[in-house]
Amino acid sequence: MNQVAILGVGQTPVREHWDISIRDLAVHAGRAAMQDAAVTHVDAIYVGNMTSGLIGQQRQLGALVADYLGQWGVEAVKMEAACGSAASAMRQGLLAIASGEMEAVLVIGVEKLTESPGKQTTAALATAADADYELVQGVSFVGLNALVMRRYMHEYGYERHDFAPFALNAHANGATNPNALFRQAINQKMYDEGRIVADPISLFDASPIGDGAAALLLVPALKAPHAIRVVGSAASTDTLAIHDREDPLWLKAAEQSANSAYRQAGIGPQDIDLFELHDAFSIMAVLSLEACGFAERGEGVRLGQNGDILPGGRIPICTMGGLKARGHPVGATGLYQLLEATLQLRGAAGEAQIDGARVAMTQNIGGSGATIVTHILERPSP
Amino acid sequence: MNQVAILGVGQTPVREHWDISIRDLAVHAGRAAMQDAAVTHVDAIYVGNMTSGLIGQQRQLGALVADYLGQWGVEAVKMEAACGSAASAMRQGLLAIASGEMEAVLVIGVEKLTESPGKQTTAALATAADADYELVQGVSFVGLNALVMRRYMHEYGYERHDFAPFALNAHANGATNPNALFRQAINQKMYDEGRIVADPISLFDASPIGDGAAALLLVPALKAPHAIRVVGSAASTDTLAIHDREDPLWLKAAEQSANSAYRQAGIGPQDIDLFELHDAFSIMAVLSLEACGFAERGEGVRLGQNGDILPGGRIPICTMGGLKARGHPVGATGLYQLLEATLQLRGAAGEAQIDGARVAMTQNIGGSGATIVTHILERPSP
Repeated sequence: MNQVAILGVGQTPVREHWDISIRDLAVHAGRAAMQDAAVTHVDAIYVGNMTSGLIGQQRQLGALVADYLGQWGVEAVKMEAACGSAASAMRQGLLAIASGEMEAVLVIGVEKLTESPGKQTTAALATAADADYELVQGVSFVGLNALVMRRYMHEYGYERHDFAPFALNAHANGATNPNALFRQAINQKMYDEGRIVADPISLFDASPIGDGAAALLLVPALKAPHAIRVVGSAASTDTLAIHDREDPLWLKAAEQSANSAYRQAGIGPQDIDLFELHDAFSIMAVLSLEACGFAERGEGVRLGQNGDILPGGRIPICTMGGLKARGHPVGATGLYQLLEATLQLRGAAGEAQIDGARVAMTQNIGGSGATIVTHILERPSP
Repeated sequence: MNQVAILGVGQTPVREHWDISIRDLAVHAGRAAMQDAAVTHVDAIYVGNMTSGLIGQQRQLGALVADYLGQWGVEAVKMEAACGSAASAMRQGLLAIASGEMEAVLVIGVEKLTESPGKQTTAALATAADADYELVQGVSFVGLNALVMRRYMHEYGYERHDFAPFALNAHANGATNPNALFRQAINQKMYDEGRIVADPISLFDASPIGDGAAALLLVPALKAPHAIRVVGSAASTDTLAIHDREDPLWLKAAEQSANSAYRQAGIGPQDIDLFELHDAFSIMAVLSLEACGFAERGEGVRLGQNGDILPGGRIPICTMGGLKARGHPVGATGLYQLLEATLQLRGAAGEAQIDGARVAMTQNIGGSGATIVTHILERPSP
């Protein structure tokens, strides 16, 4: 199987882009990635997106983006796995190059959420859950995560307060990232006084939606020996409905996809220099760290309390703000994570740079853990 | 690159399935394909679907279907390219096996349209067009195709009447297919008196929507030397908006993807024994035949008039009813086409069997020609 390298990256800032259409967001990021790679033609374009059919009345984003990028005639299609859409597009890009059929593939994650009237966005995001057995109860997506967080606190004896370090770290890191939606640090008092959205989840435990696009230009590693390399890539699934799981506090698909990625890379959690995880909610960051082997069951919260997750810590997470502060343009998020990991390994993360970063992991989650895609990237030895 | 074989097929009838949910439709077809192949575990599931996020409030069909098929933990994602979604899922299945990473892949196309209230389906289908430059004018999808058909009639001097053979052939063939939505032949008089939907398109020039699912089980050809083989596969794109095309009467993406598939298979149009084309509207069947080299520009209509498209003709099309009579469950259609082509090559098409069929072509179209996916299948020599 052909190894794959990331030759170019491109992004738009995460904002409320009232004046930019979804096609233009995608084109901006895609063109930037092509320019970064100095590539003018690609063989295929895979677009990750969750809600454009509902919110923008626009489907078939693959062909649309190919046209507006001037890549007339190329193969192009959209992937959807709720908030895991963008890393799913990455998976397809990797398989396409690994097949030998493609030499240059553009993967783009794009989402535009702020144009929707009233509660349409909440309704659109809820489609990540099980419509017939969860949504029918009237529970929102944040409501589902609140149930999980409450159960975790009950089971392992934590208070809401204990989750604060995850929000504080994300906001402190986001403050250094010019593309982040929120660029100011918060303190413990602000966290403690955070308005409750769905008890026990406060505003500071929930990531904000946003508009944005991120893109990577992929080529066979043989063609780009000095580019950041994908050394592990795996996707795994679990039940959509949380109540169908044996253990609602264990992200089985995170464990499986991470173990598979570790195996491919020939490494373990101790070798990861930074981890761009899917902190859609503080509780998801905690569960992800546990399932991926960075903490024992029920101990993930302590990685925050110990400072392990900070930029200088044992396993820095959300180094450029994470979903919490960079923002969570749902179907684009997985490629923002991969792009940020690439910048870190290039030594191009600016103020957010993790010194000497050589191996980075990313994890993108669709729904409440139903689709989980894990990647491991590596800087080639000089 | 690994060659791929189709080891199993499964489908539901196309109907108004009021009593079957979208997950159950997909599971029914998927399980049937696995049973047909005598395979109990797959490495990945790719689901083609267009509208479930809007009409069923259900996204993330990949993980959902994997769960309900008992394929816990496997990689699974949904592809969307409007009405070209299912053949796009097929493309990804082929690339995944070609990569060497997967040994058995299930591709499923599924759509459930009849559960939507009022005009929601028309609105959902319209998202295949360009939202900002076509939809904004208030034109429906059938309206766009009516403009193309009118232009064709004007340009080449045909009457509506001349398109009748396409509807007559589809309905006659659909009558032999127990899985077709419409199972009765029509005659010229019925066609001529057909109610106009969007002038000049009558009810008999437009395919009906429906609910249904079709699935294929793919494996490396080396593992299944006697199974039907995929010898050509290509996808191409064009502008979403018809007015952006140099020539609105030429399906450039059909020409490109067909030529690429011919090249891969080492054959030409003269070698195709049957062609399951995308007759969403009579005019699209005509344009597809021209772009794929079966007729000169402006002459596609004559293949109907000459009887070339009939079961005993030079290039039989829509042999099991096509979109017109089998029905058009949009995001599932591409896999119904591939399934029917497989049955023909197996000699298992029942009353619809084309004698001695050895090479079959399928073509699935998203939007008004924006995403076009062409496949060529071959029966291996005994």
